[in-house]
Amino acid sequence: MRAVQKIIAGASEPKGAVERLLRLVEGDLNAVNALIIERMQSTVPLIPELAGHLIKSGGKRLRPMLTLAAAQLCGYGGQAHIHLATAVEFIHTATLLHDDVIDESALRRGQAAAHMIWGNAPSVLVGDFLFARAFELMVEADSLRVLKILAHASAVISEGEVMQLSSVRDLSISDETYLKIVSAKTAALFAAAAEVGAVVVRGEASREQALHAYGHNLGIAFQLVDDALDYSGREAMMGKAVGDDFREGKLTLPVIIAYAKAQGNADEVAFWQRTMAERHQSELDLTHAIHLIDKHQAIAATAARAKEFADEACKALEAFPDTPMKRALVDLAEFCVSRAY
Amino acid sequence: MRAVQKIIAGASEPKGAVERLLRLVEGDLNAVNALIIERMQSTVPLIPELAGHLIKSGGKRLRPMLTLAAAQLCGYGGQAHIHLATAVEFIHTATLLHDDVIDESALRRGQAAAHMIWGNAPSVLVGDFLFARAFELMVEADSLRVLKILAHASAVISEGEVMQLSSVRDLSISDETYLKIVSAKTAALFAAAAEVGAVVVRGEASREQALHAYGHNLGIAFQLVDDALDYSGREAMMGKAVGDDFREGKLTLPVIIAYAKAQGNADEVAFWQRTMAERHQSELDLTHAIHLIDKHQAIAATAARAKEFADEACKALEAFPDTPMKRALVDLAEFCVSRAY
Repeated sequence: MRAVQKIIAGASEPKGAVERLLRLVEGDLNAVNALIIERMQSTVPLIPELAGHLIKSGGKRLRPMLTLAAAQLCGYGGQAHIHLATAVEFIHTATLLHDDVIDESALRRGQAAAHMIWGNAPSVLVGDFLFARAFELMVEADSLRVLKILAHASAVISEGEVMQLSSVRDLSISDETYLKIVSAKTAALFAAAAEVGAVVVRGEASREQALHAYGHNLGIAFQLVDDALDYSGREAMMGKAVGDDFREGKLTLPVIIAYAKAQGNADEVAFWQRTMAERHQSELDLTHAIHLIDKHQAIAATAARAKEFADEACKALEAFPDTPMKRALVDLAEFCVSRAY
Repeated sequence: MRAVQKIIAGASEPKGAVERLLRLVEGDLNAVNALIIERMQSTVPLIPELAGHLIKSGGKRLRPMLTLAAAQLCGYGGQAHIHLATAVEFIHTATLLHDDVIDESALRRGQAAAHMIWGNAPSVLVGDFLFARAFELMVEADSLRVLKILAHASAVISEGEVMQLSSVRDLSISDETYLKIVSAKTAALFAAAAEVGAVVVRGEASREQALHAYGHNLGIAFQLVDDALDYSGREAMMGKAVGDDFREGKLTLPVIIAYAKAQGNADEVAFWQRTMAERHQSELDLTHAIHLIDKHQAIAATAARAKEFADEACKALEAFPDTPMKRALVDLAEFCVSRAY
């Protein structure tokens, strides 16, 4: 937690980074928000009701913003990026609906998760609906390459989620395996969102690859910070329940690091075995977990890994000329390390 | 049940109808089966394990056969229909995985449903994976029109499923609403499967429309017979649990008809209110439900409606010249009325 706060203190106007990006894509983002509302409609009233509950609950639209920013960075003059950014947000919303069913999370963005209000069945189905609608939107953008990239990313996201499921309660998971999971379940959509913004311009392949790399590294940095925040008090600010990963026995980098450093200390090893592998937890266990994570500076180590990926993200943009949009994307990567959206 | 048996007896070589179609598409179907196995693979072992459990459990591949048959009927000479038929089967498999989670069905195709073995979470995620893979396969077929048709059908399927959820336990549902649900949740994929087989040929629009109409009407006939069989002993032959719809409070045409005819009979109305609307059921209620359905000849009436749609399906093919493939599709529609696959 201290490390995160240090990074926040070190970043220049952290909040300004998002606001600057937001200002640069504002007109397009308004068009995306209008298209989101239009395309989540259905003659079946429960669909816009349930989808709207999540969509209107104040997500930061980070992924669609990446698509809009990438298109602008590459000098795009058309309208297809609006459809693609909307498709990206629908894919993201669909995965959130399914994730909340899978994780049995009670809260999402500070309010009751959809499945807590309407049940699991409509949450699964409305996720499917939004996923299908995403592909309808992509067809309108008239690019098979874009469809290929986002269809592939969607398959990879599911693979990442299944990998994570398979590793729940498994204390033997390595850093490397964990980063593979993060790369699939989170970074694949960030990478695809940025890449398709370049693809729609039909310009140089090197720009598409650069934006893919930017999104990929940003996505990993973003997820690592998210994982760190699950063991810090700041998380309550994000509108999520504190300690969700711990309660679900979901191994994330802070625990992987703390567990590695616990070797030789029988009490600590036994604590992680009981709480994570066996998932026998009592009320004060989360506090003790946070204490051990703090003792081994696992948050600082996680934040340092996140910073490496954020730096890689910035490096990927090197070939682009210095413009306000490039600066905004660089600032965003630095800011991503300091807090999760 | 008697009506269904009468239709079986009346049909000329009912089993032969499917076998003839199967023989006509055999080579292509083998290619589809190989592609199914190839594309359900993943570096995450649980994915092919779970998907394979369902895929290898002996589904009849009716929907992909429609794509193959339509392409052949329109004189297609390429290979894209193999990819499309595989995509259609993946979409179908994804909906089955999600349906079984939603309905909490214990059995599918005569064996334990995937979520009973691996749990809900991987079933939802592997469904998502197959859905994404379906779109990757469609991209390879290199036709935005095909993507548009199947993306739209996928959205309509979810809408149909949500409509059905919303009408569970609602005894006031009309025939018309019920047919709207069936048209969306089942017939949309039959229609799209047949249509894309014609679209890939890039021929006359009238043929695409004809095959869409064939699939649409066949799909409704198919679902109505499926619903009838849920109240008949023959269902055990299909590898499904008997009386699933009844236990889930799912209003289908046999019950809608029996309930309509029960008006004025306080006992019967009270029975349906208690068992379907309130879902208070005891052990002998299914037997009594079947008795009431039989008393009001609701199975015969359902089968008669199914026959109307099957006849419409056949009529849609009128403009096609008389070939073995056309005859096989006409026979299939007639056979669909006599039993569900």
